[in-house]
Amino acid sequence: MLRGLLAVAPPEDVVAIVNTGDDVVLHGLHVSPDLDTVTYTLAEAIDPERGWGLAGESWAAMEALERYGGNTWFRLGDRDLGTHLYRTQRLCDGASLSAITAEIAAAWKLGLTILPMSDDRIETRVTVPGEGEIGFQEYFVARQHSVPVSAVRFAGAADATPAPGVLDALNEADRLVICPSNPIVSIGPVLAVPGIREAVEARREDAIAVSPIVAGAALKGPADRMLEELGHEASVVGVARLYAPLAATLVIDNVDAALADAVEAAGMRCVVTPTVMNSPDVAAALARVVLSA
Amino acid sequence: MLRGLLAVAPPEDVVAIVNTGDDVVLHGLHVSPDLDTVTYTLAEAIDPERGWGLAGESWAAMEALERYGGNTWFRLGDRDLGTHLYRTQRLCDGASLSAITAEIAAAWKLGLTILPMSDDRIETRVTVPGEGEIGFQEYFVARQHSVPVSAVRFAGAADATPAPGVLDALNEADRLVICPSNPIVSIGPVLAVPGIREAVEARREDAIAVSPIVAGAALKGPADRMLEELGHEASVVGVARLYAPLAATLVIDNVDAALADAVEAAGMRCVVTPTVMNSPDVAAALARVVLSA
Repeated sequence: MLRGLLAVAPPEDVVAIVNTGDDVVLHGLHVSPDLDTVTYTLAEAIDPERGWGLAGESWAAMEALERYGGNTWFRLGDRDLGTHLYRTQRLCDGASLSAITAEIAAAWKLGLTILPMSDDRIETRVTVPGEGEIGFQEYFVARQHSVPVSAVRFAGAADATPAPGVLDALNEADRLVICPSNPIVSIGPVLAVPGIREAVEARREDAIAVSPIVAGAALKGPADRMLEELGHEASVVGVARLYAPLAATLVIDNVDAALADAVEAAGMRCVVTPTVMNSPDVAAALARVVLSA
Repeated sequence: MLRGLLAVAPPEDVVAIVNTGDDVVLHGLHVSPDLDTVTYTLAEAIDPERGWGLAGESWAAMEALERYGGNTWFRLGDRDLGTHLYRTQRLCDGASLSAITAEIAAAWKLGLTILPMSDDRIETRVTVPGEGEIGFQEYFVARQHSVPVSAVRFAGAADATPAPGVLDALNEADRLVICPSNPIVSIGPVLAVPGIREAVEARREDAIAVSPIVAGAALKGPADRMLEELGHEASVVGVARLYAPLAATLVIDNVDAALADAVEAAGMRCVVTPTVMNSPDVAAALARVVLSA
């Protein structure tokens, strides 16, 4: 979605506010998977097959770690480690995550602004029935999100503040776009930072969401199962019920056209257009719809 | 020297007490250069040209770190990073450095016992005139020990305790060997841990040192200059004056035979034998002399 927006808008006009609830300290290193995925993707450096990490990556450090019986379920490639080493050193130096994120984006020569939702530590934690609460990466990567979830919590969110620039961007942007991402664990943590939900709600008329659910399923990840497990409907209508307070408009895919009336009944204007971004052209076309709707 | 000792003694009889004053936290990772050099060397895995790090190493993480302008003066190879990731994770888990060191040695299938001098954090810091105090690795690696030193301090030593097993080894070993290493910044930090110097002094008759100075020069590193800068003599006699309270015997190289009387006058029995360990045979022969002297 961001690639599509950057294809139709000048990069200096685009601010991406990114979830850091997935962040995890591994082996003493601060890893920010969502920030890095955004950065690597926009830099055209991401591994296109895996969808995470860098293309042409090597794995010598992980292989060495295996010798010691260390935790290798969260794979950190050798070049990717350079990013985590840099981020961790700068955090030790006292730099903020938002400052470091800007430095990393600049090193990759990205023209947009990438902001972590907060410079404060917020941890998405999920409750697995019969087992208790586990960290997000343990759920998402170690269990490959194949266990049911009965609750989600954003530890630390209540005491967090939005990163510098986040509220200004939400207040001043021509348009807010809620990208097609997991409403519970990708968009949810961002909204959990005090002040962000309120700022989005205040811009509801200029806010537009793209449904991450297409034909009742998530194109990627566990959003569909998770919505159902937490009492929501895994459909564009379920998404509309969640997003109606935040955004005036929901973009749904053509395959869900029959549900447009139900979306409107849930309180959102409905735009029907191709949303499955399997090519840059589709992404750019969707971005054009989003910016002009 | 350790390789020589292991060539002539059963590994289960050998305990190496290793300096951790060189340890440094880099990018959030706990790096123990001396422990790793001992481990990699005995595992025959060290890079023989560089004398540190692993043979056949790759440097993808450092190259990536350079993109961000991160600190790369202390080179961490990709496979070597596996060791630091493991150590740091285990420290985060609450394990002691001595326990972790044993785990790492076991993973490399080493039969001897390798002990850090202490599980507490001790930092060797050197004063550079006109500049102030800097960390040991900044002196040793970043400046390539090419600046004069006016003082050396072991921050944290006064409050440290010897690692489990250290005092027992010093009390119970048949023989204590002070290996040919920098007396100020390699042996000095070990002796600075309260209890260790006293334990060595109590075993003076069974303690034997091998001079790191041969013909007035250090075979490796800045020991010769550092001895002079700190008011000692860069000779086997200067070494004898430092070690006389600790060990009854000093082994010096054949080239220094003319100084044997001066060594004895400084209060140490003197053994003259080849000490330049440029082959495993010389190291084993020296070890035999050391164990039988």
